[in-house]
Formats: sequence, structure tokens, C-alpha cells
Amino acid sequence: MTTSHDRVINFGAGPSALPVPVLEEAAKGLLNFSGTGIGIAEISHRSKEFTECINNLESLIRTQLGVPHTHSILFSQGGGSGQFSAVVMNMLARYRLLHPDVKPEKITMDYVVTGSWSKKAAEEARRLGGGQVNIAVNSREFSKDGKSFDNIPAHDAFKFSRDPALIYYCENETVDGVEFSHELSEPTSFPFHLLKQGSLAPLAADYSSSFMCRPIPRLADHAIIYAGAQKNIGPAGLTVIIVRQDCIVDVDAAAKLGAAPVPITFSYKTLEESKSLYNTPSVISIYMTALVLELMKEKGGLAYYEDLNRRKAGRIYGLLKDGEEKGVFKRKVKAGSESWMNVVFEVLGDDAEKRFLEGAEHLGMKGLKGHRSVGGRRPRFIVQRDHR
Amino acid sequence: MTTSHDRVINFGAGPSALPVPVLEEAAKGLLNFSGTGIGIAEISHRSKEFTECINNLESLIRTQLGVPHTHSILFSQGGGSGQFSAVVMNMLARYRLLHPDVKPEKITMDYVVTGSWSKKAAEEARRLGGGQVNIAVNSREFSKDGKSFDNIPAHDAFKFSRDPALIYYCENETVDGVEFSHELSEPTSFPFHLLKQGSLAPLAADYSSSFMCRPIPRLADHAIIYAGAQKNIGPAGLTVIIVRQDCIVDVDAAAKLGAAPVPITFSYKTLEESKSLYNTPSVISIYMTALVLELMKEKGGLAYYEDLNRRKAGRIYGLLKDGEEKGVFKRKVKAGSESWMNVVFEVLGDDAEKRFLEGAEHLGMKGLKGHRSVGGRRPRFIVQRDHR
Repeated sequence: MTTSHDRVINFGAGPSALPVPVLEEAAKGLLNFSGTGIGIAEISHRSKEFTECINNLESLIRTQLGVPHTHSILFSQGGGSGQFSAVVMNMLARYRLLHPDVKPEKITMDYVVTGSWSKKAAEEARRLGGGQVNIAVNSREFSKDGKSFDNIPAHDAFKFSRDPALIYYCENETVDGVEFSHELSEPTSFPFHLLKQGSLAPLAADYSSSFMCRPIPRLADHAIIYAGAQKNIGPAGLTVIIVRQDCIVDVDAAAKLGAAPVPITFSYKTLEESKSLYNTPSVISIYMTALVLELMKEKGGLAYYEDLNRRKAGRIYGLLKDGEEKGVFKRKVKAGSESWMNVVFEVLGDDAEKRFLEGAEHLGMKGLKGHRSVGGRRPRFIVQRDHR
Repeated sequence: MTTSHDRVINFGAGPSALPVPVLEEAAKGLLNFSGTGIGIAEISHRSKEFTECINNLESLIRTQLGVPHTHSILFSQGGGSGQFSAVVMNMLARYRLLHPDVKPEKITMDYVVTGSWSKKAAEEARRLGGGQVNIAVNSREFSKDGKSFDNIPAHDAFKFSRDPALIYYCENETVDGVEFSHELSEPTSFPFHLLKQGSLAPLAADYSSSFMCRPIPRLADHAIIYAGAQKNIGPAGLTVIIVRQDCIVDVDAAAKLGAAPVPITFSYKTLEESKSLYNTPSVISIYMTALVLELMKEKGGLAYYEDLNRRKAGRIYGLLKDGEEKGVFKRKVKAGSESWMNVVFEVLGDDAEKRFLEGAEHLGMKGLKGHRSVGGRRPRFIVQRDHR
């Protein structure tokens, strides 16, 4: 059997490193899950044992994140990109039911664009149509060079519509290393106070790359929070969707009023009513994610991880600052907008990046290369690293 | 470590049993995939090693099934239910591009309904709209009791439209135990000779529950063949889609002509252009499926499995026939329409089903209970059983 000694330090942004005890437990579960004599990849998603597993996952998320009972927790496949579409379709259906007579050209969807992923989400909303995409803010306009996603703009830059069907943001931008501050007094926090509908605002957040690394500010004021598991809490193949109940609507009734028909696996109502089992879920991804969250609970939950991740981020940004003063490194993101999760920087000097990567590889550190679209380095500091 | 001795005989219809050597290999891969020092659930879907794995999976399917180069092999998430929608959306987009001026009420989609799954697929087509659903045949009308899915109707019962956007059938109905004969001279085969467009017919087949248990008749004459991996060749979380290239269309151009916008992860063109990596795939499901297909190749490929599965089906249906003569069993499906994969029967007599299940459980046989919607027993004979 492979031992953990053979393993490298994996900085990959997603799929990302998982705790070795979880992998060891899952290796056993592959042959025999929960004493059933059937492996986890082979067991019916409607079996008693798997039902316990998925219920337990729901409860672990609800308890650790403090999800109120106004919100359902749904599980799906298809990752963040699938939700780019599902969020739009469900929220346009909701808007249609609330306002049957408003024409599509009068319906707005506000997108906060602070990086590659929120930009892609806005493009998908534009593709799908059914409403007008309003870019509430585009952080490139506030960047050092006028073209980079390197900052979270100040609150007064955000221009929300009067009555949007959807307000969308990405809490942490994996490619660009930009993240909203969780201190609501900070100028780089999300401007919750500008939301006109308050706790019923149609606010959707992509938390894929920072899910469960620390508590979510103003969680209850979100209509939708979603996250692909593979960045932080499990294998690819599972998407967690936290939805406020008023956003779980009858999409077929909305279609009769003129909203676009929603593919059945994208309907939050179908997911809710089937307890996320309308189509066969990726059972192995759900099982492994539950193992990770069990371990996180044992360690002390999000309070523990918030502290740990704050210290990790402090340390690496401290080193980068020192390196910058010495002319070795250059940080890509403006102070106050830096991600705890994805640290994007350049290594300065001829051939320096290549040597840096080779040196890292020599020390058993992999996955440090930046995203091809922005370059630079991108070590990722994930919540599970502590379990190694 | 759990050994294979602790394992039961799993007859579950899907997720289904997988070969123990695959599970043992995957258990190692969870900690260290292909000597990378990174586990398979943690490795980047864009890494060199995973690219090799997914390319290998494509090649294993292409070679063993004999998929011609007129057809692409795509990988997706979301299972059969996701494809209920994707098939309709992509084929309506194709029709729109071919016939820009035909109104939705004049567009037909022909559904062959022979069981619970094809019925569900037809319902999804009706939900999505954009064309009229024509039930080309409904096998219930030809059943013994006038209400059961217990047969494949004769060829003259099929009423196809003149120029449909889609012709849809489900090759094997998991719940009902009904399957098309693969002998094209048999009256219960699919009536390929009735397809007006010949090798360019818009013919889509759900092969989820019998994929790669034997060769696919007239594969090249299909527009789309899809299958969720979890019934036959791997864990849940992976859907294999074989698509003829003329059905990989620019869905955005079609939307401009009035077709419904297609969510980006459902667009075959997006899947094709991104080599099935537009969104992060379920890497572990792809990896394990490749391991299963490697093993199948070693065993002798589909010729071997066709022979094996023919013998298995012959044996069990022989026993059921004997049992029927003795008044012990009752077969649910008409002769000639029986599935090789899902054998649905009743155990006759007071309390007999309960005792049958208890006896089976005592012998370490699980997953024999029939689907709640049809009752009866449903042992499933899957291709991998041989590897135990």
C-alpha cells in the first residue's frame, strides 16, 4: 500500500489536496462501505446506509456553517459552471412568478465582476437571455493597470439596479487571487448595506473556492450560496447549494408565464423535493466530503479553521511583502483585496519563475504554477492542508 | 484492510457492483495516482497524468464498441436525467439551424415509450417545449393487462413522424426489465428500417443500463447514444455521450434563430471543444471507469462479454421458466422482450417474496428487491459480475 510518505505537497487550486486520514478511510470504503459488504461506489443512493451518509453531510454543513432553517441545503452535480446557468434560470423563474407582466427587456440581473469566474458567470447569464445583464461593478476599471482583476472596488463603485431578479458575486476569485474582506467595516467587504430588499435580496454568491474555510458573513441574507466541493471539501462531482426557501420555486408554473423552461436536474424545487436524489448523485464524492467535514468538526470547526487560515495567509503575505522589498517577489493583488485561499504573485528576475518552480518541485511542492490566463505563481492555501 | 471475503453479492441496479481488482487499484490511486504523489480525487483535471487517463478512457470505449470517427465521445456529469434535457435541447438547436422558419408547433419529437425511463424522458421533452412530443409507440397498449411495460411492440406499431427533430428510445428499461432484441431479424428489435433519414436520422438512445454489455447494433446510425456510468462500467458521476458530428451544433446561433438557449454545460459543442473539460469533471469516476474498461479489454472485450451475458441470461430465464411451470415464479416480461440486464419476476405464494429475499440475504445476496413502482424481484446481471 502506498504510504503518505510518497505524497507530494499539492498546491493545486481544484481538485485540491484532501486529508490523508480521509483518503485512507475512503480506500477502505471503496471495498466495504459502513459494514454493508458493498463498496461506496457501488451502493444504491437510496439505501439506508447512504441515506444516513447524505443526511449527515447536510447536518455537518448546516451546523458548522450555521445555516438557518430558512435555507435548504441541496446537492447537485456539474460544479460551478452548472450553477452559472441554474442560478439564472431559477431566479428568473422566481421573478416571473412575482412579476408576471414585466417584459424580459425590463428585467435586470446585477453582476459584480471581480475576476475571471464572475466574468464567466455574467457571460452565461447573457447567453441564456430572459433578462438584461447589468455589470454592477467591474473591478478592472479600478485596477492599477486598467485591465487586471487585482482589486475589490470601494462600496460607492457598486451600482445596483432598482429591482433586479438576481445580484451575483464571486466571493473568492481562484484565478486572480482576489477576495472580499469578511470584516464588514472594511472598504473591500461586500456592500450588503446597499441591497434594497434587505434579507430578501436576490443575492447569489459563488463560494466554490473558499467554502468552509471560515464562517460566511451575512449568510442568512443570501438567496443562494453555492460551491463545488472539489476546491475545498471533497472530490469533484459534488456541488453544494444553500438556497433560501423563497427561491425554490415552481419553475413549470413560471414557464407557463413565459420564463425559460428549466432542465429538470437544474430545478431547485426538484432537488428539494427529491432530497437531492432526482438523478443518481456522485455517491463517492458525497461520502468523501462527509468524511472531510467529520474531520473538520473534530478539529474544532470553522472557528479553528478561520484562525488557522488567518495565520497561514498572514505568514505568506508577510513573506511576500518582505520579498517585494528585496525585489524578489511582486504581489499581483492590491492590499485589502488579497485572497486567503489563492495567493497570486510574480517571481522577479530573468528565469526566476522557472528556477522557483524547479526549486519547489525539488522540495516536493507541486501545483504552484499560476493560471495560464494571468501567469505568476498561485499557491493555494486550503483548509485541509492542516490535516496532512 | 477489508478483504473481498467480507463482500456480499450486490444485485443493485445502479450504482452497481464493480470488479474487486478495480476497487483495490482505486484504493491505492486515492492516495497516489499514477506515481504523481497526488491522489486521484485531488489531481488537476488539466494535469498531464489525468489527460492521459481521460484520453485512454475515450480510446477504450472507441475501440471496444467500435465507435466510428463520424462520432465524438464526450464525457459529462448529471447522468441519464441530465441527458433527458440535453438531448432535446441540442437536437432542437440542430433542427432550428436546418429549418430556421419552422414554428415550434410544427416541430415533432418522436418518443418510443417502452418503460419508466423512456416515459420520463418524454415527459421532460414535453416540459421543455420547443416542439411537440409524438409518442411513436407506447408499449403499454400492447401489454398483457393493458397497463404494464412488459413488452417491445412489433415493428408495425411504430408511427414515426415525417421529419422529426428527434427520435428517442431507451434500449434497456431498468425498472421494467424490457429490452430491444439485438437480432435485427427479430420482431422485438428496434425498427431501424423505418427511419426515413437513414444514417442521418436524429436517433437518440439511452443505453445507461446496458452500455458495453455487448456490441450496439447499428451504432453508426445513431445521432446520440448516452449512458450513465454507474449502471455498468463505473461509479456514479460520469455520463458517456457518443454523438454524431452533425449533431454537435452551434447552440448560440440556433438561439438567435429562436431555439431555446442551452445551459453551457449541456452544449455538446462546448463539451467537444473543451475535450469534456469545460467544467471540472468527476475525476475519480473517470479514472475508475477507465480501470473497469482496461479489465474488460484484458478479458477479451465485448465479444467475451456478449457470450458471458448471453449464457447468464439464458440460465436465469431457464430457471424462471422451470419455476413458472412449477408455480413458483412468474415472469413479468413477454418472451422476446426480456432484458439481459434486469430480470423482473414475481415469487408466487403467501409471504413467498419475503422469504425469498430473506433466503437470498442469508446467502449474502443483496439488492434483489424490485423497483417500488413495479414490485416483483429484479436481480440485475451486470457485466462486471464475472470479475468477482
